[in-house]
Amino acid sequence: MADELHLLSPRGFRAGAVYAGIKSKQTPDVGLLVCDQLATAAAAFTTNKVFAAPVKVGREHIASGKLRAVVVNAGNANACTGKQGDKDARRMCALTAEMIGAKPKEILPSSTGIIGHLLPMDKVERGIRDVSQQLGDSQEHALQFADAILTTDLKRKSAAAKIKIGKESVTIAGVCKGSGMIGPRMSVKSGSLRGKHATMLAYLTTDAKFASGAGLSKMLQIATDRSFNNVTVDDHASTNDTCAILASGASGVSIPVGSIAKKFLDALNEVCQSLAYQIAADGEGANKVVAITVRGAKNDKDARAIARAIANSPLVKCAMNGNDPNWGRIVSAAGMCGAAFDPDKAILTLQNAIVFRRGTPMSFDASAVSNSLNAPEVTVDLQCNLGKSTATVWTCDLSKDYVTINADYHT
Amino acid sequence: MADELHLLSPRGFRAGAVYAGIKSKQTPDVGLLVCDQLATAAAAFTTNKVFAAPVKVGREHIASGKLRAVVVNAGNANACTGKQGDKDARRMCALTAEMIGAKPKEILPSSTGIIGHLLPMDKVERGIRDVSQQLGDSQEHALQFADAILTTDLKRKSAAAKIKIGKESVTIAGVCKGSGMIGPRMSVKSGSLRGKHATMLAYLTTDAKFASGAGLSKMLQIATDRSFNNVTVDDHASTNDTCAILASGASGVSIPVGSIAKKFLDALNEVCQSLAYQIAADGEGANKVVAITVRGAKNDKDARAIARAIANSPLVKCAMNGNDPNWGRIVSAAGMCGAAFDPDKAILTLQNAIVFRRGTPMSFDASAVSNSLNAPEVTVDLQCNLGKSTATVWTCDLSKDYVTINADYHT
Repeated sequence: MADELHLLSPRGFRAGAVYAGIKSKQTPDVGLLVCDQLATAAAAFTTNKVFAAPVKVGREHIASGKLRAVVVNAGNANACTGKQGDKDARRMCALTAEMIGAKPKEILPSSTGIIGHLLPMDKVERGIRDVSQQLGDSQEHALQFADAILTTDLKRKSAAAKIKIGKESVTIAGVCKGSGMIGPRMSVKSGSLRGKHATMLAYLTTDAKFASGAGLSKMLQIATDRSFNNVTVDDHASTNDTCAILASGASGVSIPVGSIAKKFLDALNEVCQSLAYQIAADGEGANKVVAITVRGAKNDKDARAIARAIANSPLVKCAMNGNDPNWGRIVSAAGMCGAAFDPDKAILTLQNAIVFRRGTPMSFDASAVSNSLNAPEVTVDLQCNLGKSTATVWTCDLSKDYVTINADYHT
Repeated sequence: MADELHLLSPRGFRAGAVYAGIKSKQTPDVGLLVCDQLATAAAAFTTNKVFAAPVKVGREHIASGKLRAVVVNAGNANACTGKQGDKDARRMCALTAEMIGAKPKEILPSSTGIIGHLLPMDKVERGIRDVSQQLGDSQEHALQFADAILTTDLKRKSAAAKIKIGKESVTIAGVCKGSGMIGPRMSVKSGSLRGKHATMLAYLTTDAKFASGAGLSKMLQIATDRSFNNVTVDDHASTNDTCAILASGASGVSIPVGSIAKKFLDALNEVCQSLAYQIAADGEGANKVVAITVRGAKNDKDARAIARAIANSPLVKCAMNGNDPNWGRIVSAAGMCGAAFDPDKAILTLQNAIVFRRGTPMSFDASAVSNSLNAPEVTVDLQCNLGKSTATVWTCDLSKDYVTINADYHT
């Protein structure tokens, strides 16, 4: 475990978390991630027109491309909370800044939890004061912070990658949360709607050095589009979705354009895709990840639209829950989403069995395919034969547990 | 019961149904609806790019605007069945035509059930031969036909209206089926995509007289857009959705343009909306109808998009299942669909309780509102205050029973 990479493996960061009594479950609910120096930073936020107070404040604060810290609470989303909500998000930043010796605008606030309730600010403030006294850069501190952002998640989510650039090493790491209300469509640009998704939070650290937030922002959007924006549990875009990256520069390795940037981006993609996959695997009530790859679509937009339509069909998701090779639901989902699709050209493969080929059902051993669907990961591969675009979307099955979890979350 | 209107109340029609062994459940599965004369007719079909053989053949046959009969089987959708599927749909028409003394192109075929299996044509043919010997115009015959189109439906669905035009009376009646894979986006025009919906079949009869299929077709599209195209159970557009209307003309009352046409259209809307509502009420696993009305939207498209986003959110539907006034899910669903929406202007009312008003949560008695949600019909009213457009969409709650029904339908 000593050598395992974690959120604080990139040099220049400290973190911590405490239980402040916001969540009913006694696990950490206020977390703080601090960069020792003013980090170059970027963030992508939900494109939902109903966005939470911390998203509003966060958009303002990230505009400079610089951050000292992220302060986050779980248990209450501070969304649909009017002007008091805005004040509370700003107060979280001001208090954090005071505690760590920074400016309020250098703090990114995040919240996740129930919508429409004012934050219990006495508890939040006590939490921020307490956690700021307990910061450290150990793996334990990293894990505490990872735990502090969880709500209905059953598992902690973490990923990291280390790359060599010349003789120097650069580390990228991240943690995230997300289980229900998951269908992110995040953008680094305010107001640019990319789709529909749900509350997921992700925080990434790196010790690479970036000249400006703009370059980092561009990379974050690319990585987000290839990872978090392709995961869906219930296709419900949250008011709070946030993905932020802080670059401390402590490795001394600058990321210019060209091949070095590509190497960095590949590693960033790897970290983000691992985190996104962990969200699908821990989807509310999930028994398995369903990885849907659409190939040969007319264009990228169509590839993604078809993959999402399949991933979001309750009928497909229930069939996956029942290990049922009911491929007609998959093909019909592809046909209903508005994208170019011709069943007479399509080939559908479930796990390794071709079940539908160019307009005609294939005979297959239903019992054997059903057995193969009883696995932690199921692959659905749809070759459209209409073009060259590909997209992969990760989702999970729809179980009775999802209904149980969501039928009585509020009252 | 004797005076109750039914599918065969409009003069000039006969119907019947038999059990031919296509469904495993021993209830009627082959139905025939015949007009004594060549009826003026119109039909709207699924806009799914993956459409069943009977939809393909039906589109060809309706082109003339004339029909003698509808032949329908339940238990097998004849979808994704390749060229043999096309042949089988044509054979259903040819045999029906032979049995009733009509031309094959005067017959509209329909199928509903499992996708991707060839029709058991021996059973289908025997069913068509048998039912053609048992046609009648009694209420019992109407009910048998209504039963023959059901699959996972728990209830028979029927509606009718009688209007006076001058001294004459005109009757409009209909039956339909639909419980799962429901999210119709039907159009009288081939290839015009309107959205996403699921297998629903509806057949309407009237003894009004129409000069051409074109005028009837226009009315059918308007009525469909205000009824079937606004119901969703799982937002999954079927390969087989079909809504057909046959006008026998037996009343002698012509429907010209103007006020008489409006009166007819109002009655047609009433019948279609009643049928659509019955589909939502009998949605797979449903405990209640959720009627979502969006008011004050910027335009009609936005009104419908917002209402559909709310209706299709698994989180909203689970909350309804749990009688949980978790209004944050409703407001966030409105914000994520791409339509113009401003939470600072919106007012959300659940049953009779205002729960969110212009950006701010309202204090309300959660227990009382929860009790009010424990009802056979729940109304969600969202005033956007952005314009003048309104839309109502009907859906149902998402229950564990929906998962049970759909996790093991195929194997």
